[in-house]
Amino acid sequence: MLDKNRMYPKHLNSLYEPCEYFLKIGGKRIRPVLCLMANELFGAVNTDAEHAAIAIELFHNFTLIHDDIMDEAPLRRGKQTLHIRNGLTAGILCGDVMSIYAYQSIGKIKNNLPEALALFNKTAIEVCEGQQMDMDFEQREEVSLEEYIEMISLKTAVLLACSLKMGAILGGATAHNADKLYAFGKNLGIAFQLKDDYLDAFGNGEKTGKQIGGDILANKKTYLALYAHQKSDDTQRQALHTVFSKTDKEKIDTTLAIYKATHADKTCLQAIQSYSQLAYDHLDKVALPSSRKEALKELAHYLLNRES
Amino acid sequence: MLDKNRMYPKHLNSLYEPCEYFLKIGGKRIRPVLCLMANELFGAVNTDAEHAAIAIELFHNFTLIHDDIMDEAPLRRGKQTLHIRNGLTAGILCGDVMSIYAYQSIGKIKNNLPEALALFNKTAIEVCEGQQMDMDFEQREEVSLEEYIEMISLKTAVLLACSLKMGAILGGATAHNADKLYAFGKNLGIAFQLKDDYLDAFGNGEKTGKQIGGDILANKKTYLALYAHQKSDDTQRQALHTVFSKTDKEKIDTTLAIYKATHADKTCLQAIQSYSQLAYDHLDKVALPSSRKEALKELAHYLLNRES
Repeated sequence: MLDKNRMYPKHLNSLYEPCEYFLKIGGKRIRPVLCLMANELFGAVNTDAEHAAIAIELFHNFTLIHDDIMDEAPLRRGKQTLHIRNGLTAGILCGDVMSIYAYQSIGKIKNNLPEALALFNKTAIEVCEGQQMDMDFEQREEVSLEEYIEMISLKTAVLLACSLKMGAILGGATAHNADKLYAFGKNLGIAFQLKDDYLDAFGNGEKTGKQIGGDILANKKTYLALYAHQKSDDTQRQALHTVFSKTDKEKIDTTLAIYKATHADKTCLQAIQSYSQLAYDHLDKVALPSSRKEALKELAHYLLNRES
Repeated sequence: MLDKNRMYPKHLNSLYEPCEYFLKIGGKRIRPVLCLMANELFGAVNTDAEHAAIAIELFHNFTLIHDDIMDEAPLRRGKQTLHIRNGLTAGILCGDVMSIYAYQSIGKIKNNLPEALALFNKTAIEVCEGQQMDMDFEQREEVSLEEYIEMISLKTAVLLACSLKMGAILGGATAHNADKLYAFGKNLGIAFQLKDDYLDAFGNGEKTGKQIGGDILANKKTYLALYAHQKSDDTQRQALHTVFSKTDKEKIDTTLAIYKATHADKTCLQAIQSYSQLAYDHLDKVALPSSRKEALKELAHYLLNRES
C-alpha cells in the first residue's frame, strides 16, 4: 500500500525525496495491517480504514525519524537513518511534514471523523510522552519495572491498540468491541516489546539478523537489565558495573550470565506470557464469533512467538 | 488566552515545562487575533473559533521551536531558545508534542470540522515546504525575487491567511468571503515579511529593540539582499563579496550603502506598498458593510506601518 506508489508530491525534492527513502527502507507494517484486520471484523474493509491505516503508518515512521535523531542512531533496518543520510535539518523537517501527512490522511475519513481524530490525537500525545520517559530513564540511576512497563505502553503499545480500535470504530463497532480490541492491542504491544527485549539478549543472531546483545552494549534499560539490577547481589552488581571496561564479548557474556543467575530471562518470558494471556482474554470478549477473530489471534501468535 | 492558564498537563514535567516556558516568552499573538476577528465579522465569536485560534498559535510556536534548531538560534525575543535551554531532544520532542496539541484543539471543533482540518493540514504542509525552501536557499548562489516571494508566502503568509479563513469558515461565512479573507491575509503576510526585512536594515534600533543589520551579519537572503545582488554592478558586487572580512560595522555600512545605491530600499518599500494594496483590495471584496471590516483594516495598517 505504502510502497507501490509515491506517497509525496514530486516538487521540492529536498523535502520529499528523503521521506520516500525512509518509507521504502521497509518495516513489517504491523500497525496498518492491524487497523485493516480490525476493520474487516465488522464488514468489508472500507476506505476510511485505509486512510486511517496510512495515517498510522506515516505517524509511526515520523516517530522513528525523530527518535533516530534523539538516539543518535546511524542505522535502521541496516540502512542509513534519515538524519545521517540527509542531515539534521532534513531529519527534523521530513519528520514534521510526515506527521502532517498523517493528519491529512486522517482528514480524508468520511464517517466518525471526530472520534477517529480524538483517538489519534490522544495516542500521538502518549507516544511522545513515552519517548520522553525513555529519554528521561537514560539519565536516571533507578527505574522500576512498573515505570518501564508504563514507558513501553506509551511508546509502543498504545499505537498498536489505537490501530485496532481505529479499524473497529471505522467499521461501526460498538464501544464495547472497540474498547476490547484496544485492550487486546495494548497488552499485545507490551508483550511484543518485552519479546523484543528478550530476543535482543537471548535470540538466535542468525534468525534475528541482529547482533545479539545490542541492548547490552548500548546500556539500554530493558526489562531484563532492570530486573537483573534489582535482583542481583553485591557481587553481581559489582560485576555489572565493571563490565564497562571489558571487551564487547566479555560484557555480553557476563551480563547474560547474570540475567540467567537472577532469573531475569525466565521472569521476562513469564511477563510476555502473562501480557499475552491478558491480550487473548480481551480478544475473547469481543462480541463476535470466534471464527471471525481467528486471523487476529494467529497474527498475535506469530508476533509473540517469533524468533526474529 | 494562552498565557493565563497552564496549557499542558502537570505530569511529565521534563516534556511539558519547556513547552510552557516557550509559550510564555511572548509574541504578538497576531494569528489567533486574526482568527477571532475574522470570526467576529460573521457574528459573536464562537467556541469553535477559539479552538482554532489556540491551534494556530500552538502550531506557530511548534514551527518556531523547530526552526530555531535548524537556524542554530540561541535567542528568541531576547530569551533562550528551547533547544539551547533544554537540549536538542527537548527541542525536537516539545515541538512534536506541541504540534499534536494543536491538532487536539482542532479536534474540539464542533461544526465544519472536516473543512477546518483540511485547511489546517494544507497550510501546515505549506509552512514546512516554505521552511525547506528557506533552508535550500541558504545553500544556493542565486535565488530569484519570485522564488523569495514564493518562500515567504509559504513560510509566513499562508498561516496568516489560514487564520483569517479559519475564523470565517467557523463563523459560517460564504466560500466567497472566506476566500477573499484568505487572499487578504496572504498578501498582508507577504507585505508583513517584507516590512520585517526592511526594518532589519533600515529600522530604528531603539524602536525595534533589535540590532540593526542582523540579517546582513547573518548573510540572510532577504528581499533587499537579493535585489541588491541582482542590480549591483561589478564594483558593488565585489564590495558585497569582500565585506566578509570586515568588522560588523563596516559590513553593515557597506551593505546598506549598496542597498541604497541599487534602490533595493525603495523597491522593497514599493513591494510592501503593492502587496498591501492587493491585501486591502481583497478585503474590500468581502461582502460585508465597510464599517464591520474597519477593525481588520486598522490592524493591517498597524502591522504594515509599524516601526518595530
